[in-house]
Amino acid sequence: MPIIRIEMFEGRDREQKRQIIKEVTDGFSRATGASPDTVHVVLTDVSTEDWGRGGEAFADKT
Amino acid sequence: MPIIRIEMFEGRDREQKRQIIKEVTDGFSRATGASPDTVHVVLTDVSTEDWGRGGEAFADKT
Amino acid sequence: MPIIRIEMFEGRDREQKRQIIKEVTDGFSRATGASPDTVHVVLTDVSTEDWGRGGEAFADKT
Amino acid sequence: MPIIRIEMFEGRDREQKRQIIKEVTDGFSRATGASPDTVHVVLTDVSTEDWGRGGEAFADKT
Amino acid sequence: MPIIRIEMFEGRDREQKRQIIKEVTDGFSRATGASPDTVHVVLTDVSTEDWGRGGEAFADKT
Amino acid sequence: MPIIRIEMFEGRDREQKRQIIKEVTDGFSRATGASPDTVHVVLTDVSTEDWGRGGEAFADKT
Repeated sequence: MPIIRIEMFEGRDREQKRQIIKEVTDGFSRATGASPDTVHVVLTDVSTEDWGRGGEAFADKT
Repeated sequence: MPIIRIEMFEGRDREQKRQIIKEVTDGFSRATGASPDTVHVVLTDVSTEDWGRGGEAFADKT
Repeated sequence: MPIIRIEMFEGRDREQKRQIIKEVTDGFSRATGASPDTVHVVLTDVSTEDWGRGGEAFADKT
Repeated sequence: MPIIRIEMFEGRDREQKRQIIKEVTDGFSRATGASPDTVHVVLTDVSTEDWGRGGEAFADKT
Repeated sequence: MPIIRIEMFEGRDREQKRQIIKEVTDGFSRATGASPDTVHVVLTDVSTEDWGRGGEAFADKT
Repeated sequence: MPIIRIEMFEGRDREQKRQIIKEVTDGFSRATGASPDTVHVVLTDVSTEDWGRGGEAFADKT
């Protein structure tokens, strides 16, 4: 009954999101033997203005 | 001082969100005896393209 | 298909946790008309040393 | 390798977000001695309709 | 720079956790072309007393 | 009314956690002008077996 949450930079299109949901579910299933039907995946888009490392937003990195 | 976070499919209108905040807070309070004033609720809308089960986005399920 | 996550101070016993899961699920269901069977609840215990407000851990408040 | 996630009311402009990422990263670094380069910060804007306390959305408090 | 968080029932041993981290990272990388080096995975064990569906903890389901 | 959640490697002692709560709260307050009294901080310890990057748990990196 796993719940997989993925935060990533915004900008992936619908087809890439489909692939992410599929590949990550299959990967978890291969690793554990869990049925894919029990695996939830929730994607969250994050703007580069809202994500920082080293004290600086990625939007400001050059 | 509980924090209750709810991820759900997008599309609830403002009145339904009011009801969710009220009912969930009251439910927690009844279960624990905690004062409703200490209960935070944060709602997050998730698109059906961003939520998958069984390796497939809900947007693609027929 | 909502997922409800609750962070609260540690120390609730198993019976209280049962009540929280039941009451919060029923509250969400009443507010939205969603079937309780689709509602997930995940509880997280937080130590008072790990939770602060006003810059001070609750464990240190007198 | 800490990950710092901040939920706050929406409405901060880009310059304030820059300051939040910088100040919170520096604060964590001062407290722990960790290099700022290892600190991730992710900001999440929450609408006052989606955040409640005491069973009432902040949008409805007068 | 994705962050992948996985909540699952407690009880996986260290070798299974290794496999989960590896397979999920590779799956994300295949789907997006992102370098595995940028992918963080954080696992969270959840007790069956702390996870409910349909208003009932999994620990109580027969 | 911000909520700040910090995931970090386990092993910080109580005094370091006090400093983290204090410094991060003050940093947020300086950046935004918000009163420290409104700032919640929740710390989460993560084992190096449960945190991976590049498909490998930190516990296994040499």
